[in-house]
Amino acid sequence: MQFSSKLLEEAVNEFSKLPGIGSKTALRLVLHLLNQNSDEVTHFGNTIIKLRQNIRFCTNCGNISDTPVCEICTHPKRDRSLVCVVEDSRDVMAIENTQQFNGLYHVLNGLISPMEGVGPSDLNINRLVERVASGEPTEIILALNPTMEGDTTIFYLYKKLKDFNVKITTIARGISFGGEIEYADELTLGRSIATRVLYENSLLK
Amino acid sequence: MQFSSKLLEEAVNEFSKLPGIGSKTALRLVLHLLNQNSDEVTHFGNTIIKLRQNIRFCTNCGNISDTPVCEICTHPKRDRSLVCVVEDSRDVMAIENTQQFNGLYHVLNGLISPMEGVGPSDLNINRLVERVASGEPTEIILALNPTMEGDTTIFYLYKKLKDFNVKITTIARGISFGGEIEYADELTLGRSIATRVLYENSLLK
Repeated sequence: MQFSSKLLEEAVNEFSKLPGIGSKTALRLVLHLLNQNSDEVTHFGNTIIKLRQNIRFCTNCGNISDTPVCEICTHPKRDRSLVCVVEDSRDVMAIENTQQFNGLYHVLNGLISPMEGVGPSDLNINRLVERVASGEPTEIILALNPTMEGDTTIFYLYKKLKDFNVKITTIARGISFGGEIEYADELTLGRSIATRVLYENSLLK
Repeated sequence: MQFSSKLLEEAVNEFSKLPGIGSKTALRLVLHLLNQNSDEVTHFGNTIIKLRQNIRFCTNCGNISDTPVCEICTHPKRDRSLVCVVEDSRDVMAIENTQQFNGLYHVLNGLISPMEGVGPSDLNINRLVERVASGEPTEIILALNPTMEGDTTIFYLYKKLKDFNVKITTIARGISFGGEIEYADELTLGRSIATRVLYENSLLK
């Protein structure tokens, strides 16, 4: 693209670095900002800068938090014996929205991915081992995406945690509710038969 | 969405104001920024602020420019008798990319849209009339989108300019090159027959 202004080009390049934003979308966003009031755009820019500089992570679970220990970890009614391990804060929000889980979380902040150069030491794993070693959790739920990276991470965590006195579980995989068997992929369908459960156990308690 | 941090929530809200960005995409962008180096994110924020505060528009044609008069308007080899009127800077880039046009531009910075409260006085129209009145352009090409707003704007500009000694043209509409007649919409197909051209005239000179 040929730009008529250096400032414009720089802004479009910055937006293009965001995931899923190509140069045409970036240009659209930048031209939108140019049509906004200057104060609003300054506020937008400052919000981003402030976010990155002041963001804190819960020292217990690694979730994004404004306080040293997050609201979930300090909540008196949460079941401290259950810890759900997730990839990032988005998964915490998704699980919280279900209102089906009343334990604590542990945010890894990524998954093991040799392709992208992410090893176990880049993730929030040591703190998880500490938490398990403290004896407080009795069950660790590994709620990671069913991808190569997710499975690798689950296997790594399983090896790290299996010698502690803690139950290690993963979320159920199968045909989604409302999903049609006819259209399910073979792997999911095959595995949902192989790992079938007693009807009584499939009901919510 | 339930956020674990006010800072996070504010940043997601700001991103959600951008066109085509919903709250899930906004969250994805914000979490991406959190994983970047602090200096880079500060640079991103400052680029946006600097853009909005320092952006200048060419005093002749209204295009985005770092100099008082833009590079196209000052270019010695451009044909000053031809002026192509467009909605915004994106259209200037698109036309420049074709390398088929060697005249000057005039950027309206929008289209007349009663629905969105945009009237002729909100657009860069007075300056266009001045340019035409100066006698320099001999042809005005109205290259606006074939929408209700575009057609309204074309009609308004035509009435404003028709009494000057200047030829007023619009870009050709029809079946696109590579487009199949079978799949063309009825309006385009019908009009492409009604406004058919002599074969010799359809060839590029």
